[in-house]
Amino acid sequence: MSGKLYGVGLGPGDPELMTLKAHRLIRGASVVAYPAPDTGASFARSIAADAIAPGAVEIPIVIPMRAARFPAQAVYDTAAQTIGAHLEAGRDVVVLCEGDPFFYGSFMYLYDRLAGRAPVEVVPGVTSLTTCAAVAGRPLCARNEVLTVLPGPLEDAELAERLATPGAFAIMKVGRHLPRLRRVLEGMDLAGTATYLSHASLPNQIVLPLAEAPEDAPYFSMILIPGRDPYAAS
Amino acid sequence: MSGKLYGVGLGPGDPELMTLKAHRLIRGASVVAYPAPDTGASFARSIAADAIAPGAVEIPIVIPMRAARFPAQAVYDTAAQTIGAHLEAGRDVVVLCEGDPFFYGSFMYLYDRLAGRAPVEVVPGVTSLTTCAAVAGRPLCARNEVLTVLPGPLEDAELAERLATPGAFAIMKVGRHLPRLRRVLEGMDLAGTATYLSHASLPNQIVLPLAEAPEDAPYFSMILIPGRDPYAAS
Repeated sequence: MSGKLYGVGLGPGDPELMTLKAHRLIRGASVVAYPAPDTGASFARSIAADAIAPGAVEIPIVIPMRAARFPAQAVYDTAAQTIGAHLEAGRDVVVLCEGDPFFYGSFMYLYDRLAGRAPVEVVPGVTSLTTCAAVAGRPLCARNEVLTVLPGPLEDAELAERLATPGAFAIMKVGRHLPRLRRVLEGMDLAGTATYLSHASLPNQIVLPLAEAPEDAPYFSMILIPGRDPYAAS
Repeated sequence: MSGKLYGVGLGPGDPELMTLKAHRLIRGASVVAYPAPDTGASFARSIAADAIAPGAVEIPIVIPMRAARFPAQAVYDTAAQTIGAHLEAGRDVVVLCEGDPFFYGSFMYLYDRLAGRAPVEVVPGVTSLTTCAAVAGRPLCARNEVLTVLPGPLEDAELAERLATPGAFAIMKVGRHLPRLRRVLEGMDLAGTATYLSHASLPNQIVLPLAEAPEDAPYFSMILIPGRDPYAAS
């Protein structure tokens, strides 16, 4: 009798943006796993901290900083072994996931390794995408508008090609790419309506017109570009 | 002293996918408003039903069925007047929103009319987008993959042009467009990997390979098309 693996979305950072289901599962979990940096606190754990049961077994999945964007698969091999042992012993395991597990999330690496061996349930969470729109006070997309989500590391040519199409855009994982992204957007006359955000929903949240964004943006930052006509019924 | 307007995302349908914050605000609300059809129950109200206080004033915003997709703006003028009167009397008003208020949501029509007159807070919710990925057991987008969200009513030529680009896709508001969308996807050799979903997270949820989807799809249905290589670091 295998335990069940839960990939649980925690939302964007404010613990109150966790779902009731995530909260229930975390409170009841005897084993929780979460991504963690090699130095400092785990962001995922910090969101869920108040819900984790005092006696719970904790499995930090330590991702070396330099591999943060293209993680060493060996880390997930080891984590899957540790988690797999709990599952085989009949214990459920709750994996804490920033945002939503399947929206640019690292949970997929565990999912790939464990989905064939144990029952798995993925619990969706509030994404940074819609949180940024809420915090900026601007609808993300309307009616029959196309929404395109662009990772910041994309090359200029692909970015420009995508941004030339109609619709609304969100550029994620902005980080060190900010000065380059701003140049691309300025060159396409899209910078004027763009909003820069970081740490949306957290006490240190920043919301600024793109022109006023810091040169040195954190990894968890985003640029939102509204559609030219948000009410357009294309 | 004006009351505060809250646009509160309820998530995709399962009441447990409501956030802790949405739950707290709804429980404490003395005035709640929600979209409702001209016949039958309000989906938004049904998600929040257990949290609404017994004595709360309820304001159904009745959208005539035939105008469901391009709502009569007069309905929102009237609703904004009714809600505005409560706000002016110092009462907070919680507007219940299916999914997320600013992700293809009708809350924007109230927001436009009331944001200048009273303080407004938008509380993001879990979208059907990531819920469908969770329920399908397939990551929505990975690493540096582009995600494009396409409304089903788009014309064939625009759909085909968008779908010819790399990345992952979600087609929303499928409804009566399903047979046409399936033909477009089959013509582009994308139908084989596509998943059809309706009512994700609800007891009547359906998850099927696109080839097996019903000809007559409900409005709240979706097609997910994964990227060609979900781990590709483009």
